[in-house]
Amino acid sequence: MFFASDNTSGLPPEIWDALRQADDGFAAGYGGDDLTRRLRDRLRSIFEAPEAEVFLVTTGSAANALALATLTPPWGAIYCHPLAHIEVDECGAPEFYTSGAKLAHVAGADGKIAPDALNAKLAASGRGNVHNVQPGALSLTNLTECGTRYSVAEITALASIAHDHGLPVHLDGARFVNALVAEGCSPADLSWRAGVDALVLGGTKNGLMGVEAVILFDPARAWEFQLRRKRAGHLWSKHRYLAAQMLAWLEDDLWLRLARHANDMAATLEAGLPEGALMFPRGGNMLFARFSRATHAALQAAHAQYFLWPDSETLEGPEHETASARLVTSWSTTPGQVAQFLSHLPRR
Amino acid sequence: MFFASDNTSGLPPEIWDALRQADDGFAAGYGGDDLTRRLRDRLRSIFEAPEAEVFLVTTGSAANALALATLTPPWGAIYCHPLAHIEVDECGAPEFYTSGAKLAHVAGADGKIAPDALNAKLAASGRGNVHNVQPGALSLTNLTECGTRYSVAEITALASIAHDHGLPVHLDGARFVNALVAEGCSPADLSWRAGVDALVLGGTKNGLMGVEAVILFDPARAWEFQLRRKRAGHLWSKHRYLAAQMLAWLEDDLWLRLARHANDMAATLEAGLPEGALMFPRGGNMLFARFSRATHAALQAAHAQYFLWPDSETLEGPEHETASARLVTSWSTTPGQVAQFLSHLPRR
Amino acid sequence: MFFASDNTSGLPPEIWDALRQADDGFAAGYGGDDLTRRLRDRLRSIFEAPEAEVFLVTTGSAANALALATLTPPWGAIYCHPLAHIEVDECGAPEFYTSGAKLAHVAGADGKIAPDALNAKLAASGRGNVHNVQPGALSLTNLTECGTRYSVAEITALASIAHDHGLPVHLDGARFVNALVAEGCSPADLSWRAGVDALVLGGTKNGLMGVEAVILFDPARAWEFQLRRKRAGHLWSKHRYLAAQMLAWLEDDLWLRLARHANDMAATLEAGLPEGALMFPRGGNMLFARFSRATHAALQAAHAQYFLWPDSETLEGPEHETASARLVTSWSTTPGQVAQFLSHLPRR
Amino acid sequence: MFFASDNTSGLPPEIWDALRQADDGFAAGYGGDDLTRRLRDRLRSIFEAPEAEVFLVTTGSAANALALATLTPPWGAIYCHPLAHIEVDECGAPEFYTSGAKLAHVAGADGKIAPDALNAKLAASGRGNVHNVQPGALSLTNLTECGTRYSVAEITALASIAHDHGLPVHLDGARFVNALVAEGCSPADLSWRAGVDALVLGGTKNGLMGVEAVILFDPARAWEFQLRRKRAGHLWSKHRYLAAQMLAWLEDDLWLRLARHANDMAATLEAGLPEGALMFPRGGNMLFARFSRATHAALQAAHAQYFLWPDSETLEGPEHETASARLVTSWSTTPGQVAQFLSHLPRR
Repeated sequence: MFFASDNTSGLPPEIWDALRQADDGFAAGYGGDDLTRRLRDRLRSIFEAPEAEVFLVTTGSAANALALATLTPPWGAIYCHPLAHIEVDECGAPEFYTSGAKLAHVAGADGKIAPDALNAKLAASGRGNVHNVQPGALSLTNLTECGTRYSVAEITALASIAHDHGLPVHLDGARFVNALVAEGCSPADLSWRAGVDALVLGGTKNGLMGVEAVILFDPARAWEFQLRRKRAGHLWSKHRYLAAQMLAWLEDDLWLRLARHANDMAATLEAGLPEGALMFPRGGNMLFARFSRATHAALQAAHAQYFLWPDSETLEGPEHETASARLVTSWSTTPGQVAQFLSHLPRR
Repeated sequence: MFFASDNTSGLPPEIWDALRQADDGFAAGYGGDDLTRRLRDRLRSIFEAPEAEVFLVTTGSAANALALATLTPPWGAIYCHPLAHIEVDECGAPEFYTSGAKLAHVAGADGKIAPDALNAKLAASGRGNVHNVQPGALSLTNLTECGTRYSVAEITALASIAHDHGLPVHLDGARFVNALVAEGCSPADLSWRAGVDALVLGGTKNGLMGVEAVILFDPARAWEFQLRRKRAGHLWSKHRYLAAQMLAWLEDDLWLRLARHANDMAATLEAGLPEGALMFPRGGNMLFARFSRATHAALQAAHAQYFLWPDSETLEGPEHETASARLVTSWSTTPGQVAQFLSHLPRR
Repeated sequence: MFFASDNTSGLPPEIWDALRQADDGFAAGYGGDDLTRRLRDRLRSIFEAPEAEVFLVTTGSAANALALATLTPPWGAIYCHPLAHIEVDECGAPEFYTSGAKLAHVAGADGKIAPDALNAKLAASGRGNVHNVQPGALSLTNLTECGTRYSVAEITALASIAHDHGLPVHLDGARFVNALVAEGCSPADLSWRAGVDALVLGGTKNGLMGVEAVILFDPARAWEFQLRRKRAGHLWSKHRYLAAQMLAWLEDDLWLRLARHANDMAATLEAGLPEGALMFPRGGNMLFARFSRATHAALQAAHAQYFLWPDSETLEGPEHETASARLVTSWSTTPGQVAQFLSHLPRR
Repeated sequence: MFFASDNTSGLPPEIWDALRQADDGFAAGYGGDDLTRRLRDRLRSIFEAPEAEVFLVTTGSAANALALATLTPPWGAIYCHPLAHIEVDECGAPEFYTSGAKLAHVAGADGKIAPDALNAKLAASGRGNVHNVQPGALSLTNLTECGTRYSVAEITALASIAHDHGLPVHLDGARFVNALVAEGCSPADLSWRAGVDALVLGGTKNGLMGVEAVILFDPARAWEFQLRRKRAGHLWSKHRYLAAQMLAWLEDDLWLRLARHANDMAATLEAGLPEGALMFPRGGNMLFARFSRATHAALQAAHAQYFLWPDSETLEGPEHETASARLVTSWSTTPGQVAQFLSHLPRR
């Protein structure tokens, strides 16, 4: 019963096949190979963005930090939710890559930035005042860190505020595909048409070995991005193995099918939760549930794996009458695993 | 006829098998898995270094830059050969990771730092003078960028000078295994016993998909290294796929056999070169040969692939009567490919 | 009627005299002169800290950022109040100098960090978790940005929490002297005896041209500080002119007399404020007063100069029925200026 | 007999008068004062550059590093002479401020970059190759570190090469005024008309307390410069004291008169040197002379102060039959001091 994260699952057979097929003789390194070119063209087509530039790296932290560094000067403020992965879980990668930009918190319920809060923050930003860091970029995550989902309309509203203030928009899409199939729109609708300027399209959490695509819808700073990637040691020599995986993933809607399955498993989990346990509206393949300590103990005894979050990572102190569990499903989660998990919960 | 680099070859079957075997259910992420622990223990044993700490990343630039940043303060001078990969081919990665350390050139024939030159540089280093950057670290490459090899004695001599000045020693071992089998000594002899404090053990150029081990023989700064790695986005979530590859590579001396084959192919190449064509003494699987322009043209017409280096990357200008070709063999280079290449050279 | 800041006043005659006396022939540069040595010894004596190291720079932002960079690694969290000068008014200088440390907000009333909030923040800091930035340093400001004052006991309590977690303590003392004379204790009591490890002793706001002393009570990292200062271009060649000023300032308690006068002027201001106008308890020479818009308009018409802060820098929007004025007095503020200002306020 | 540096002399009376006159009541801080505006206009007029932006800092290292960071990306190569102050004497300030740019050496006799060497370096720069740092900027020093002088024609030739490759040109003008009066041209001729994009106009070595002007002839990045300056803690609050000094310095050609005097004193020194002692053609107020060890000993015994440079900072080792002395004169050097110095030299 493994619900700790979708980034610890294995690879589907289609991906292994693609890797083996790529393993044919010598190929030009560093992205000069044919598979990489084909992948770029495929993503341009799928995203209806013929000018977009596509670059691969192997971790989400690198993808986010490189994108943000390309969008934001060192004296920039990156507006993000206080629970954003870039703020909480990347050990300061955005600060390192940007040479010291400041992550400025913008609050909002359910892990989503509230438009009013963003407007207020920008109104007090000190733009033009040399003593203050200057507005740099807006960063969103979809699915959010609370497992909720920004709708197309919500992204559009926030991106519009950002653009009105001259700020580019970055979207951490570690679970973009899960959001996409849940939202039921086109990839373009959930990204550039809604105002996203740089998308991190996560593959790792949805069946790949370690492949993330950074899609720059505005190609103006593509060369800068490439230099930053190389300079950070994120340009793979055997690049074909990254491209091959993502190409196979896009084939026959595999990426969408994998994400739909993960979302379905999460829906089954949600349906089996006790009344009132769900902490945030579920947007895709991740949910947070508040369990009694007895239930938590029973699950632990049964070797269920999940993180306690975001209230606390421990259960120390009298305030923790309940445990907040983060449950993540993946393309490889089975109905049996879900059923087993639910069997330890109190009946609804 | 692909002699452009050893980093563009595929993976041997043993590595594919290991990858598939690792693909079994869920596994703890970020190096908390069992394969990663086993790899660390295996390398400790092979290097006779029970205290050493081992960390994986996926590119040599990242491995070098992270190691150097852990060894050197931002105001440090990193002494290296003018042709060093860290100076020439990493787009400033060491400067980025160290937050601005300075790479100071130390000359020497055949891509190797000369002890006298190192002594002279250190004597003029300005240690203790606040206006000067301060001695930070010594960085060596073995095999060198000229395809030559430092002997155990040569590394010992240089490391001894460095240690006498309080400097730690980094070794870029992108082709360490090729040097190791050619030198015919133990891994410990060619690393920590000779004075190396941090070794980048390259797997990518010797049959892996993108796996480099940083071995810190002094574990004092291991936690700092881990934070730097995470902060740089180089900590893989699906870490087991990296560890599995290197474990299989170390099994039954596969790593040594792969490197020996590459070296043998290079030896065959060398044996077939015209008199006087070899530019530097060959240390392993890489050599530089000076061809007449006619020979170069014939090779190009036959689709032989290699880089022109280090004199020039082009053949423009009247001074280029000859072409300096860098020829690299790999675990997958075949005798037939070598024979075909040699067939285009003038008879000895 | 100038109450905008104490950093815009001129220099007292004693300081001019000292400058002219220092202007005698040639003197060793970069702090190698005799005046600089005497200043260091004088500060050691006044602070009862014979081991302390003393370094001069010319701005408070530089002093703070250099001290923090010496105390905190790039992956460190610097705990500070959300209104801290280092967070709000230095355009990201701490992030620049530390190469990307994160300023983490710790709340508390009246511009002062609350011990409970600090404890809670440290409990959730993620120490030892590689995904999180690591606890780096505690930064306090005294006088605070709200014009309030930490007592010796309050600093001791906060520093004790920090030290229990292994964190060094930085104190931004741009108005340290104003706090000192108001608190009525010894310099040592308000700094190292209360747990401060690095003090920025501000001279600029208290009568000097641009002189700030960084006092490192633990001299272990003094050489690193000096290298960072030089590397940042903050090591003056004509250093004697900085040292001469601060030496004269310390002579015959001039520094204390200047600060006492400024505090007295602020006390007079406070005494004349309308009932309920004072926003925070006044700790020294700075106070915040809430005026009606009519009063604000009258003051503006009379050319009174002050900033609107911290609610808002503008008066736009219906929520601003009142104006929050920051009023700062200095060594050169006269009773007549205060009386003139008060004459525009409604009678108590 | 102080010939160690021109940055250790005092201030002329005109500067003291200006400082005292500026000390009148309160003035807007951070460069918002009237003196700062007047200085900018004055420099625009003197340099015949009505669009230029002017910013003050207090050290040459800061001025150079801030200018270079504004001109060069972190992955840029800054082409400079191996003896350049930015390379040798700033403890890595350019690397710190640029976030890791690389200083690339371009050789040339007498401390001056040779056009052929610059062309060769740029031809091999790897522009467009993602593995290499990219051409960033050309940095010149005038007077050079060898005390020689670039003529207008020489600067024009080098700047033209740089511009042909799209590179901006920085000029470290710590001794620009000495070069200017020796060259006998207009300030514009020796700067922007010759192709200089960013000039550091040094005042400190020519009679000011610590005032350097950065003149950006292309104002496009002026706002970025201001943010970088603030972020580095180099924006003075009591800015009027900097502006007042430089305004007085420009008045009635004082800056030129001070520099002419220093140059004259150096000419007298040169005229009294033994045959063959002069190491480089003297360009202004600095010269290098090779003395016998006996002469050096006699000078030391007479308390003459100067640095040994650039061969060596010590006289250890048998190769030092002679001592290379750097002799610098200043606005306050007297004919008597020069005569006294010369009295210890062997007769011509």
